[in-house]
Amino acid sequence: MATLLLLPGDGIGPEVCAEVRRVAAALVPNLNVEEAIYGGASYDAHGTPLTDEVRDRALASDAVLMGAVGGPKWADAPRHLRPEAGLLNLRKAMNVYANLRPAYCFEALAGASSLKTELVSGLDIMFVRELVGGVYFGEPRGIDTLPDGQKKGYDTALYTTSEIERAGRVAFELARGRKNKVHSAEKSNVMESGLLWKQVITELHAREYPDVELEHILADNCAMQLVRAPKQFDVIVTDNLFGDILSDAAAMLTGSLGMLPSAAIGDPGRPGLYEPIHGSAPDIAGKGVANPLAAILSFEMALRWSLKEVEAADRLLAAVKGALDSGARTRDLGGELTTVQMGDAVLCRI
Amino acid sequence: MATLLLLPGDGIGPEVCAEVRRVAAALVPNLNVEEAIYGGASYDAHGTPLTDEVRDRALASDAVLMGAVGGPKWADAPRHLRPEAGLLNLRKAMNVYANLRPAYCFEALAGASSLKTELVSGLDIMFVRELVGGVYFGEPRGIDTLPDGQKKGYDTALYTTSEIERAGRVAFELARGRKNKVHSAEKSNVMESGLLWKQVITELHAREYPDVELEHILADNCAMQLVRAPKQFDVIVTDNLFGDILSDAAAMLTGSLGMLPSAAIGDPGRPGLYEPIHGSAPDIAGKGVANPLAAILSFEMALRWSLKEVEAADRLLAAVKGALDSGARTRDLGGELTTVQMGDAVLCRI
Ligand SMILES: CC(C)[C@H](C(=O)O)[C@@H](O)C(=O)O
Ligand SMILES: CC(C)[C@H](C(=O)O)[C@@H](O)C(=O)O
Repeated sequence: MATLLLLPGDGIGPEVCAEVRRVAAALVPNLNVEEAIYGGASYDAHGTPLTDEVRDRALASDAVLMGAVGGPKWADAPRHLRPEAGLLNLRKAMNVYANLRPAYCFEALAGASSLKTELVSGLDIMFVRELVGGVYFGEPRGIDTLPDGQKKGYDTALYTTSEIERAGRVAFELARGRKNKVHSAEKSNVMESGLLWKQVITELHAREYPDVELEHILADNCAMQLVRAPKQFDVIVTDNLFGDILSDAAAMLTGSLGMLPSAAIGDPGRPGLYEPIHGSAPDIAGKGVANPLAAILSFEMALRWSLKEVEAADRLLAAVKGALDSGARTRDLGGELTTVQMGDAVLCRI
Repeated sequence: MATLLLLPGDGIGPEVCAEVRRVAAALVPNLNVEEAIYGGASYDAHGTPLTDEVRDRALASDAVLMGAVGGPKWADAPRHLRPEAGLLNLRKAMNVYANLRPAYCFEALAGASSLKTELVSGLDIMFVRELVGGVYFGEPRGIDTLPDGQKKGYDTALYTTSEIERAGRVAFELARGRKNKVHSAEKSNVMESGLLWKQVITELHAREYPDVELEHILADNCAMQLVRAPKQFDVIVTDNLFGDILSDAAAMLTGSLGMLPSAAIGDPGRPGLYEPIHGSAPDIAGKGVANPLAAILSFEMALRWSLKEVEAADRLLAAVKGALDSGARTRDLGGELTTVQMGDAVLCRI
């Protein structure tokens, strides 16, 4: 029996994860759903956002689903003990190097985008963001005091051939099942790590994926094109930092922010880490009004990518679309439904 | 008599700079306008995109106005001799540490934005991008071969207290003459240089600019908010890399891409470097159809910031708005005017 470890975390995390529990029970009754404490909640209880025990349970499970972490309550915690540090440590420990972030426009919500409807209707981009390397983890890093009293803050943006290759492979494989087109975004004109990125992707493509269309694009131009004509993109592969920024901009294009899931996967057979793109939303936490669809769709990705329950994933996706088409809307979508009512709207269509 | 050094550069650069010459002659007949070879053109003639002689002339002038640099022709030139390298070297030599990039929506063009008109009508953001530091210039950097044959590409993102302070001061000073609001964008949650950035801006604000409203924002969230509700921003101060990406995304919001200027300034009394945001557009180079307004507006910024001809700058800005209001449109704006005809439309309103 497969095991899903739920890490509800902070803010609205527990509320949206409760809906995932209900959906899981109805859809895949055989799934063993466990739960553990994590993030700010874990810091409060154990003095660290990620205990060794929870990390080990994550590594031993088949998939991990996080609600949300962080909030102003922990802003003054020591940097390495903040909820965000727990998240980075978990990604690194699980070695989930490829972060799949769909920027998908649900037809029923196209009108809610900032962009003109014709620019986003039918939008379906998949970002593959490298997730365990780059400037997020590179050494050396620190803040030093110079002899004249000034401070110097520094970080190292670093990639090796194999780190780039494994992220690239995920992108090319994905593209084959989609529109067969990959954009690789970097700043090879000003960064050495970006130049290596471009070279390695070019060689990997020629060697293993010549059938896939590949285009290199500078990250600044990519940001611009995402606003100008986002439908030109299919799969975008990029580094940890650019992926963070570009995928957030793209998520906003869909009109479905607060609805978008993500998957972080590693080597085949290893557990994946699934999480909504949205944050812990402390302002509405505990009120029962958060939109649970991002968490539910993250579970959908877990079914597909880690739990090999593709048929259940298809059914769940259809249920979510059906709920939206029927007009089900939480507050963030301009409606009145509560978290539980939106969960019901999905459940009754499974 | 003040001197403006024109560096027409490559692609459409010479064509749009010719219009700047005509405008300058009509508006400030006393200005001494000189010209020098630069970019790919200089690489072809002298084997380097920026000769020492041109660099020295730039340093000795009152303002430098670039057309555009680069193009596929020089894609295979050695990296340190590419047109882009000439640009980075010129920025560094002139020590123009604050890059002012307006994302301004001309009323006559609001309908051309990708965003819904009500989200961008009246938009007026000023980016202050740090331009001579960060990962663009940090050492060490390189691509090494590891013992196992793998390669490692690395760059150093680095800022010192004084580098951050001087960019911050430009932003706060600017805000005082605008809506008095500064957003400072970084990734202080994952980068040490970003954490120092946030600390230094916080202290500078408390010490010298407590009257200005300051908000810290993570760069990923900033990208998102620029698409969601761009009018919430007044001045955004950020580092070299984030400034590159965020200002490009924001330029696209205005519907006026190909029309936006930029100014790079350093210490008071030192010459500034002015350039259109657009590139060299090799596909339309030499056809006489490029929009000269970005170059003309860059000249407007030079008049204002380096040449202390504020009245002339105001007249020029009014002439450009008048031309747009009258319906003057080059091809990029969906019209038929040539480069020279658009120049005429501005000239006859000066
Ligand atoms: C919380 C933060 C450390 C994180 C990141 O920058 O990766 C977040 O923005 C994300 O994209 O998941
Ligand atoms: C051409 C390139 C080096 C440059 C940069 O990245 O700074 C350009 O994108 C810009 O923004 O002026």
